[in-house]
Amino acid sequence: MKLLEDRIRKDGKILPGDILKIDCFLNHQIDTKLMDQIGEEFYELFKDTAPTKILTIESSGIAIAYGASRFFGFIPVVFAKKTVAANMAANTYEAKEHSYTRKIEYTVQVAREYLNENDRVLILDDFLANGEAMHALISICQQAGAKIVGCGAVVCKTYQPGEQRIKDLGYQVEVLARVRHMSDDGQIEFE
Amino acid sequence: MKLLEDRIRKDGKILPGDILKIDCFLNHQIDTKLMDQIGEEFYELFKDTAPTKILTIESSGIAIAYGASRFFGFIPVVFAKKTVAANMAANTYEAKEHSYTRKIEYTVQVAREYLNENDRVLILDDFLANGEAMHALISICQQAGAKIVGCGAVVCKTYQPGEQRIKDLGYQVEVLARVRHMSDDGQIEFE
Repeated sequence: MKLLEDRIRKDGKILPGDILKIDCFLNHQIDTKLMDQIGEEFYELFKDTAPTKILTIESSGIAIAYGASRFFGFIPVVFAKKTVAANMAANTYEAKEHSYTRKIEYTVQVAREYLNENDRVLILDDFLANGEAMHALISICQQAGAKIVGCGAVVCKTYQPGEQRIKDLGYQVEVLARVRHMSDDGQIEFE
Repeated sequence: MKLLEDRIRKDGKILPGDILKIDCFLNHQIDTKLMDQIGEEFYELFKDTAPTKILTIESSGIAIAYGASRFFGFIPVVFAKKTVAANMAANTYEAKEHSYTRKIEYTVQVAREYLNENDRVLILDDFLANGEAMHALISICQQAGAKIVGCGAVVCKTYQPGEQRIKDLGYQVEVLARVRHMSDDGQIEFE
């Protein structure tokens, strides 16, 4: 997605630890016009999969999922909740996620009433790094017996294993901006 | 907002501790069509205040703020981040919030680069109970020197002090559904 790549080149910052910071338009401040455009792009990529629900994870995935939902005829968005403590609840699906940027493990939860075997789920998230968050969302869909129709992320780095890991599970994976290389002087190259 | 009141009557659940659970369309599963309608309602209520930015708090405020932003010409949304640990960062504005439902204290943070004295801020959130979260967002705006043009919430209970507390600070406060009474048998009355 050319528009997104240009925006990342313009506003992205490279932080120590190979972290791409784009929180001026995605993770902390949100460019809602861009979210609409990202949503439309996901619609174009997944429109043939006929999802009935979009599953994402708080907090950064919410705007992305909302933006996409509008193009899919306002299908419901469900966002998984992250809790640091593993407070088990009887009425939730749960999976573990190890956060790449925060170096901690979360318990990811979705209430059972919002996901079941009749759902066709499109999973969307902001970053696809090692695939931990996406993997947790896939696990939750599997626990619910829901059909996963596709997995989308806004950004990935192609030298990290996440994208291939999810593809290896047999799912359609679409990423809007695929970073091939980030250099210390702030240059970002895309595939 | 009649549409919202009807939806709360239909789908809201009353939990022990006087908690109104509407996470089937607002806090966990999101009805994005309703978010658009809520956004338009906030636009009608605040359109004369000419905000340049919407400030909210993760996670439940994000969809609400996005929905409103679309009607205000896609002005940026900034969502404050909540961390349980008080990890001070030099480049953020910070405030404390005591959560009504979770009974814990959060540190609420906004990066300084996303809020300054040139901003005219509309603060939006999901619930206005005791006003703690709204108060934290107001404090952050004050630290930034930003002008607060109004405060909006989707739901409040009129027998809780939050709405009046924020009004007493001199701000325009608008709430879309004002619960007057919730009874043990599940009846919900609005003002």
